[in-house]
Amino acid sequence: MSRLLTTGIRRPTLAVVGATGAVGTVMLQILSQRADIWGEIRLVASPRSAGRKLTVRGQETEVSALSEEVFDGVDIAMFDVPDEVAAKWAPVAAARGVVVVDNSGAFRMEPDVPLVVPEVNPHAVRSRPRGIVANPNCTTLSMIVALGALHSAYGLRELVVSSYQAVSGAGRAGVETLRQQISLVAGTELGTSPGDVRRAVGDNTGPFPEPVALNVVPWAGSPRADGWSSEEMKVRDESRKILGLPKLPVAVTCVRVPVVTTHSLTVHARFQDTVTVGGAREILATAPGVVLFDNPEAGEYPTPADVVGTDPTWVGRVRRALDDPTALELFVCGDNLRKGAALNVAQIAELVAAERH
Amino acid sequence: MSRLLTTGIRRPTLAVVGATGAVGTVMLQILSQRADIWGEIRLVASPRSAGRKLTVRGQETEVSALSEEVFDGVDIAMFDVPDEVAAKWAPVAAARGVVVVDNSGAFRMEPDVPLVVPEVNPHAVRSRPRGIVANPNCTTLSMIVALGALHSAYGLRELVVSSYQAVSGAGRAGVETLRQQISLVAGTELGTSPGDVRRAVGDNTGPFPEPVALNVVPWAGSPRADGWSSEEMKVRDESRKILGLPKLPVAVTCVRVPVVTTHSLTVHARFQDTVTVGGAREILATAPGVVLFDNPEAGEYPTPADVVGTDPTWVGRVRRALDDPTALELFVCGDNLRKGAALNVAQIAELVAAERH
Repeated sequence: MSRLLTTGIRRPTLAVVGATGAVGTVMLQILSQRADIWGEIRLVASPRSAGRKLTVRGQETEVSALSEEVFDGVDIAMFDVPDEVAAKWAPVAAARGVVVVDNSGAFRMEPDVPLVVPEVNPHAVRSRPRGIVANPNCTTLSMIVALGALHSAYGLRELVVSSYQAVSGAGRAGVETLRQQISLVAGTELGTSPGDVRRAVGDNTGPFPEPVALNVVPWAGSPRADGWSSEEMKVRDESRKILGLPKLPVAVTCVRVPVVTTHSLTVHARFQDTVTVGGAREILATAPGVVLFDNPEAGEYPTPADVVGTDPTWVGRVRRALDDPTALELFVCGDNLRKGAALNVAQIAELVAAERH
Repeated sequence: MSRLLTTGIRRPTLAVVGATGAVGTVMLQILSQRADIWGEIRLVASPRSAGRKLTVRGQETEVSALSEEVFDGVDIAMFDVPDEVAAKWAPVAAARGVVVVDNSGAFRMEPDVPLVVPEVNPHAVRSRPRGIVANPNCTTLSMIVALGALHSAYGLRELVVSSYQAVSGAGRAGVETLRQQISLVAGTELGTSPGDVRRAVGDNTGPFPEPVALNVVPWAGSPRADGWSSEEMKVRDESRKILGLPKLPVAVTCVRVPVVTTHSLTVHARFQDTVTVGGAREILATAPGVVLFDNPEAGEYPTPADVVGTDPTWVGRVRRALDDPTALELFVCGDNLRKGAALNVAQIAELVAAERH
C-alpha cells in the first residue's frame, strides 16, 4: 500500500452501486475504516435516490443515478443491487472496462465468473473473462472462512448446516419489520396460544412470509425443485464452488430468527481424516479472519449480540462428534452485512486493485 | 374408557406434584381437556405454595404440601419438580404403591426405569420394577414421535439435530426474562453494534447465560465432558433409549431462541433404506400424534407461532438430501409444555391407568 502512496501511481477510482441500501451503508462505513487505497469514490443508486448526500471517508458525497456514463473513468465497481438490476448493469459496466464485484445472485454460479472469499480462494479472482467477480451469499459467507481453514487441514467430506438468519439479510425492510413487530408484542403475554402473535402483527410481515417476532420461520428465499429454498441451494452450490469441491454433499435448512444482524449456523462437518478438538481449535485460533471463542464453562461462545458490528467469523462450541472421529460440530456467527456482504466485497475490490501495481 | 365408567370400578386417584409450575399449570389444563378417567385429583407442591387454590376440571382445588402422607390412597402421581426433589420424593411415593410418572432428569437413563413416548414405545411402560416411569426431556419429545414413525418404516441409522428452543423450557423465569428483555429493546435501534443489547439488558438475564431478546444463545443446561451441554447429551441418550437403538450416532447442537413456547428442530436423518419424499410424507401424514404441514409454495410450514398451544408434533420442509438417497431433511415443531412435557406425562399416566382394568 505504501508503495502505491509514494510512487505517485494514480489511485483507482471506485464506484459503489447501491450505496443507499442496508449493505451499501455498511460498504461506506467499511471504506471509511479500512486502509484508504482509493482515489475518487463515486456513489451510485437508483434515480429515486439520486441527489442524496452520504458520507464516506468523512466527506459528503452526492449520489448519482445509475447510468452508462456514471462508469466512465471507473476502475472497480462494488455492486449491491437486486439480481435483475445486476444482471443488466454489471455487463454494461464491464463493457466499459470496469471490474465489477457483484453481491447479487445473478452471476455466482456462472462458470466464467469467479466466486471469491479472499481468505479461502484469493487466486480465483485473477481469472474473470467477463470482468465480473461474484461475492457469495451472506449465509455461505458467515461460515465459509472457518470451514476453508478446516478443509485445508483435514479435507472436507460432508456438511450438514442449519441457519439462524438475521432479518437484515432481507434488507432495511427486514429490520424495520422486526422492530415494528417487537413493539407490537412488547408488554403483552403473546406467544402462548396458536396464532396470537400472527393476529397481533396482522399484515405487518414485511418481506417475510410469517411473523418473525417471538417466532422462527423455516423459509428464506424462493421455492426451488423438490421442496428446497433458493437460500438453501445457494449455501450448497456456493460452498462447493468456493472450496473447489463440486461434489461435496451439503444438506442445509435455512431458518429466519428475530435477530437484527449477524447470521449464526450450526455445522456438522465430516472430514477425510480423523479430527481432534485440540487440532481443530489450533487451526481456528490461527486462521486469518477467524476468532475462536470457545470456553462454555466460562460462558464463552459467540452470539449475534456480541458479534454484530465486527469483521471476523466467530467460532465456538467446537466438539468432535461422539460417534464419528472424523466429524466436528461447530456454532459459527458472522455479521451478515460486514463479512457476509460489504466487507468481503471490499476485500475482493482490494485484491483486484492490488493487481494493478 | 366407557367400560370403566359403566362397570363401577373405582376410578384411580391421581396426584399432580409440582402443580404450580409452568408445566404443572399445563398439566391442569390438559387434565381438564382430555377424557376424564380420574377419580380424585390431588394437587401437590412445595410448602411455599401449599394452600393456594387452582382450578382443575372446573373445580377449585387446594394445593397440599409435599409430604409422605399426601401419597396415601394415590394410584398414580405425575411429577414435575427439580431433579433433586424428584430423586428424593419419587421413591418415597413408589414405596407407598404409587406409580410415579416423572418429568425430571433424575431417572431417565436408569436401566430399570422405562422412558416412554406412547406413540413410539408404549409397551415399555409395563416393565417398571421401581414403580417409576420417566418422561423424556422436552427437546427430545419435540421430534421423537415423527422420528419414531420414520424409523419404523426405514430403519434409522444416524441423526444430526439442531434446536431452536423456547424460553419456557427454562420455566416461568425464562418466560418472564424474555418478556422483560423484549420491553427493554422495543422502540430502540439496538442489535446493531457489539454488546448494545447486553448493555440494555444489564443483569436481567434470568436463567440464561446471555441476553435472549434479539439474540440466539448456543447453550442450554450445564457443562458435560468434551464441550457438550447436558441438554445435548439428553437428546442423544434419550433418543437412543426410546427408539431402542443404543448405538445410534446422534450429533446435536442446542440453541436457545427468543420464542416463548414451542421448540423447533432441524433434523438430518439417515436411514438403512433408500427413502422417497412421497413415502416419508405418507408415513408422517398418517402417523398418530403427527401433523404434516408441508407446502412451502403455499406458505405452509410449521412455526412456533402457529404450533404453540397444540398437541401434535408438526413436521414440514420434508426433503430428501440432494446427495444421499437414504437421508431426509425435516423441520419439526412441538409445544414444549404440552407434548414436550405435560401431555406426554398425562398420556403415560393414562396408559398405566388402562392396565388396571
